[in-house]
Amino acid sequence: MTTKQVGKQSIRFSKPPGIISGASVVGPKEGEGPLAKYFDKISSDILFGQKTWEKAESEAVRLGIELAVQKAGLEIDQIRYILAGDLLNQGTGSSFGVRQLERPFFGLYGACSTMGEAMSLGAIIIDGGYADYVVSAASSHFCAAEKTFRFPLELGTQRAPTASWTVTGDGAVVLASAEKSANVPRIVGITTGKIVDMGITDVNNMGAAMAPAAADTMLAHFLDFNVLPEHFDMIVTGDLGHVGSELLQKLMQDKGYDITKNHTDCGIEIFDKENQNTLAGGSGCGCAAVTMAGYLLHRLNKKELKRLLFIPTGAMHSVVSTQQGESIPGMAHAVAIENI
Amino acid sequence: MTTKQVGKQSIRFSKPPGIISGASVVGPKEGEGPLAKYFDKISSDILFGQKTWEKAESEAVRLGIELAVQKAGLEIDQIRYILAGDLLNQGTGSSFGVRQLERPFFGLYGACSTMGEAMSLGAIIIDGGYADYVVSAASSHFCAAEKTFRFPLELGTQRAPTASWTVTGDGAVVLASAEKSANVPRIVGITTGKIVDMGITDVNNMGAAMAPAAADTMLAHFLDFNVLPEHFDMIVTGDLGHVGSELLQKLMQDKGYDITKNHTDCGIEIFDKENQNTLAGGSGCGCAAVTMAGYLLHRLNKKELKRLLFIPTGAMHSVVSTQQGESIPGMAHAVAIENI
Repeated sequence: MTTKQVGKQSIRFSKPPGIISGASVVGPKEGEGPLAKYFDKISSDILFGQKTWEKAESEAVRLGIELAVQKAGLEIDQIRYILAGDLLNQGTGSSFGVRQLERPFFGLYGACSTMGEAMSLGAIIIDGGYADYVVSAASSHFCAAEKTFRFPLELGTQRAPTASWTVTGDGAVVLASAEKSANVPRIVGITTGKIVDMGITDVNNMGAAMAPAAADTMLAHFLDFNVLPEHFDMIVTGDLGHVGSELLQKLMQDKGYDITKNHTDCGIEIFDKENQNTLAGGSGCGCAAVTMAGYLLHRLNKKELKRLLFIPTGAMHSVVSTQQGESIPGMAHAVAIENI
Repeated sequence: MTTKQVGKQSIRFSKPPGIISGASVVGPKEGEGPLAKYFDKISSDILFGQKTWEKAESEAVRLGIELAVQKAGLEIDQIRYILAGDLLNQGTGSSFGVRQLERPFFGLYGACSTMGEAMSLGAIIIDGGYADYVVSAASSHFCAAEKTFRFPLELGTQRAPTASWTVTGDGAVVLASAEKSANVPRIVGITTGKIVDMGITDVNNMGAAMAPAAADTMLAHFLDFNVLPEHFDMIVTGDLGHVGSELLQKLMQDKGYDITKNHTDCGIEIFDKENQNTLAGGSGCGCAAVTMAGYLLHRLNKKELKRLLFIPTGAMHSVVSTQQGESIPGMAHAVAIENI
């Protein structure tokens, strides 16, 4: 076991990769929400000028990655790898989105935890010296996700109060080697999640399905790095929303950790629950991705946050698995980011 | 740029990870094919004792990974990461398959190139010192794939002569750090593929869609490492089958490389075209995975092969992308394995 391996399931990076830029491209509803001023591009057209929702998502992916690379002052050819994933069947949001970019590509699937997975593997690649620059990205699209997982929008199905609202957008960050980055927030460590399945079967309550996974990964992170919640200025989970966040806080309380003072969730931050009718909150791979690449990275860059624990959460089911009576396994990947 | 980065899109490992074990778990049809004697477990029941095809695939995943770990003389807790993927919507073959194993999990999607992606990222993690042991795995199931991508089997739809036959099975390998492995085949380098789309739209001719991607990655590998085809005892693509392999050989000929003497394809090797009615050959994430973990690893371990270039190929489309008139983007990841 090398010194990079910390505790049971974590890594401490020896040359912490810098986050040298981020770009967030969102749809109209996200552009009306509380984080609007942090997004780089708000499309007034949920189709992003395309003919279908799926093509719209791929267009957001392309725009997000290109913009992140441009903001880093790089050319796309300088990006050694793109790591990206989404919610669509066979990850076509990403594969068609990166098609024109012609870069070596690792396609990922971690449901809504994908941005955590993309940043974790990206940081490993950078820290290990396998690339000078990589892009980590994740995306989702409200209409495409509803069609994939729930009902066609045309049915006008009533939504459950515990249901979340899939974010339309792509968030992308450029990670760079220590040598190629200065005075930027850095990924200092990661804790990779296990599949955690507590037997939740309600597809309209993803927060409850994912909260135990978030607790499992968070606890592992605290133990592996021997830190307490107050070590972080903010602990931000992926898309537990209002229902799942309350559950997570209770689960952590049961384990002896009070995260109520500095925990929030991307699904809570991204929409105004009272005025946007988003029920349990935002969700989707894009939720954590655009909140990171927009709002959180902004606060990190302004030095308003010194230490951030970012934990995107995912529900690893499919329509078929649910129809076959399976419960909904959860997943969460923690990424510790510091201004050092 | 560090010395690990080779050419435009390749890595040369400084401490080449060893492949210390492999396990292949297949269905009845694969067990009647020419590679039968190399498989660890042949299920006479295509349902693997489960109630649905999807659950059968997850059961194969669990069996394959557990067996690979057991053959390596390890306990599952010694595996730092599992990297796995499959063809099902939202990758549920893998997520439900690894659920009981309770190990940190990176879910991947590279269509039928997934085993190349899992071995590439696994080798990066090991070589970089982020783990002592990882499992890289990929799976597919004929019936589940037909249902996902083509027609319900119950329709008895006639198959096109260029159509391939999805392999039922899971292939898993355990990769170990140089310190933890001796006298085993090693992953010495990788070349990560780009999305390559030549505008093929025929979902019954995946070989043609993937051949240009295989050629692109193979050419990059030859150029980055400055080697010729004859450097390798065998060059084995993933699942181009008979149609795609012929195309690939022609594409490489056009670029000045003769691979006809030492190239074959997992989709050609796994079935007996004449007697098994498998048309263009085997396909699916499981095709390259079980051929690697069974046949190829056997030959490497016997020292019959000194240098192998393994290039799983994938078609990165979905039913929805095809219905929306999109072409089929291809993808291929090269893994160079040597007895050194």
